[in-house]
Amino acid sequence: MRGQRRERATLVDVAKASRVSRQTVSNAMNNPDRVAPETLERVRAEIARLGFRPNRAARSLRRQRANAIGFQVEQAAGRPVGNILDPFLSALTASAQADDAHLITFVADDERVLRTYDRLLATQVVDGFVLTHTRHADPRAAWLREREVPFVSFGRIWDDPTVTSWVDVDGRAGTVAGVEHLRDRGYRRIAWLGWPGGSPVGDERRKGWADATADLDQDAGLLSGTTPQDALQASAATDRLLDALEPGDAIGCVSDIVALGVTLAMSRRGLRPGADIGVMGFDDGGIAEVFDISTVRQPLEDIADALVRMLEQPTEPSEGLIIVPAVVPRASTSR
Amino acid sequence: MRGQRRERATLVDVAKASRVSRQTVSNAMNNPDRVAPETLERVRAEIARLGFRPNRAARSLRRQRANAIGFQVEQAAGRPVGNILDPFLSALTASAQADDAHLITFVADDERVLRTYDRLLATQVVDGFVLTHTRHADPRAAWLREREVPFVSFGRIWDDPTVTSWVDVDGRAGTVAGVEHLRDRGYRRIAWLGWPGGSPVGDERRKGWADATADLDQDAGLLSGTTPQDALQASAATDRLLDALEPGDAIGCVSDIVALGVTLAMSRRGLRPGADIGVMGFDDGGIAEVFDISTVRQPLEDIADALVRMLEQPTEPSEGLIIVPAVVPRASTSR
Repeated sequence: MRGQRRERATLVDVAKASRVSRQTVSNAMNNPDRVAPETLERVRAEIARLGFRPNRAARSLRRQRANAIGFQVEQAAGRPVGNILDPFLSALTASAQADDAHLITFVADDERVLRTYDRLLATQVVDGFVLTHTRHADPRAAWLREREVPFVSFGRIWDDPTVTSWVDVDGRAGTVAGVEHLRDRGYRRIAWLGWPGGSPVGDERRKGWADATADLDQDAGLLSGTTPQDALQASAATDRLLDALEPGDAIGCVSDIVALGVTLAMSRRGLRPGADIGVMGFDDGGIAEVFDISTVRQPLEDIADALVRMLEQPTEPSEGLIIVPAVVPRASTSR
Repeated sequence: MRGQRRERATLVDVAKASRVSRQTVSNAMNNPDRVAPETLERVRAEIARLGFRPNRAARSLRRQRANAIGFQVEQAAGRPVGNILDPFLSALTASAQADDAHLITFVADDERVLRTYDRLLATQVVDGFVLTHTRHADPRAAWLREREVPFVSFGRIWDDPTVTSWVDVDGRAGTVAGVEHLRDRGYRRIAWLGWPGGSPVGDERRKGWADATADLDQDAGLLSGTTPQDALQASAATDRLLDALEPGDAIGCVSDIVALGVTLAMSRRGLRPGADIGVMGFDDGGIAEVFDISTVRQPLEDIADALVRMLEQPTEPSEGLIIVPAVVPRASTSR
């Protein structure tokens, strides 16, 4: 991998090979009239020999940042409907474009993602990456950092607090706000439908629910369940919770996709979200609005803008950017 | 615009300036040992002077196709949930990648799309485009063709039958198949909820409904309505149809997003999709599966593969590729 990356000629390589300063190489590309003809010819020959791309590299040099950003999209088959990463891709495209950068999409399964990074870098297709779906034992950040590849992340780099080039939403605070909204609306017991343990995002949101319901007289074990991030499976997982709940209780959900599954299960029993059982989602990526589900909003445009700004910085920030999200009240918490 | 494009040096430009054949330029880049040293130096100097990018251009030359493909995504705000273009973007990314090409996303409103094309081409960010959302009075295909920019389209180029580099689904045949499925299942009257007239895709699907119900004893005017491509607005538009329908009737929909709106309106009245009123969607981009809605499936992976293959061809095909889609039966047409 190292060998492949070394093939990518830099301005420094051209300067060394031509026995001139980097400024002279830059002038040869951008202000050739400032360079003596003989020197100019030598630099240009080295540029051609090394396959150094003048236009693009000069732009990166001037702007001190990557110009093409790699972004992994999920495979078409089996991707969840209402995925927050769909509007996030749009927001990130717009933020990058406003800054004269471009997003390049790619697909890769977990086993191949590092090989795909390597190929995209070796072929000079991208200069850096925006990561999403960060998790424990995630090899991506360490791999990129080791190779000094610029990257930022929507989501914390959970296993390495020294990596700070990320933007994330405070899942605990968001869920606490969601539960407090349910309690303010007068719902009595507050159940939780989350993802299976081990997902740092899911665990953090679940902690918010546990903390915000600790003083309630309720059986936390009976009132919590897990489901994958899929509306149909969430719907099936809701049944056990509904058996334990009564009208006037509520269900906090780890995501809008899960909340959608909850409302599907409720409608099968003739229960109305809000009037009978309160339902609170998390994300607000579009699906919550369609189904009139109250939720905790991730501000995707702000996150995308912050990530692109961060990618522009020549150095990493001293700490990541945590956004405390706000509740968007809708019919599913209206009694 | 012409001026800007002319700045992009081609292999032919290098050959002319170096007073050698194109093959010699190609050899200078890929097999330099086959070229006399003096000639090699002259060609390399011209490559550098003209800013010709050897790696990429050589690959395009060898492969006879564009290497980076522009793809317009919708803005984050107001984009419909369940948009078929979300899974299509994934499928297209995978198809392009399998072929060593890359997708570059961009956003643009209708007024700016040609300027955005121009900028992406002038800055050599993309070599061609995949169009979607084609419609009447759509200026994009003519603009691209005039400039000899490679492009293909998911959707016919409605106003210019001489442009044949597209793949599309036969909307009329698909809707006919959907209505026949409803009739086979024993639904009596078949209503239609479509988009407002003037959309070629919507008009074609509506024609399928009109043709396949022409022999039915039903009031077509009473049993058809229109809605924008939005589940909530579709839900509102469904009410008038439901007033006119009886249990045992059905509603054919121009899209799954519209069908979702229909099922939302039905559940408000306590009507069950399938058992009470049949519902048929169109697209199968994910949302129909979640809501167990029978639909007409657009095979996105096949379409993406065909488009990438088409973009590889040095010449346009003699005619566009029309795919006749199949019905996917689910609960919403089960009595």
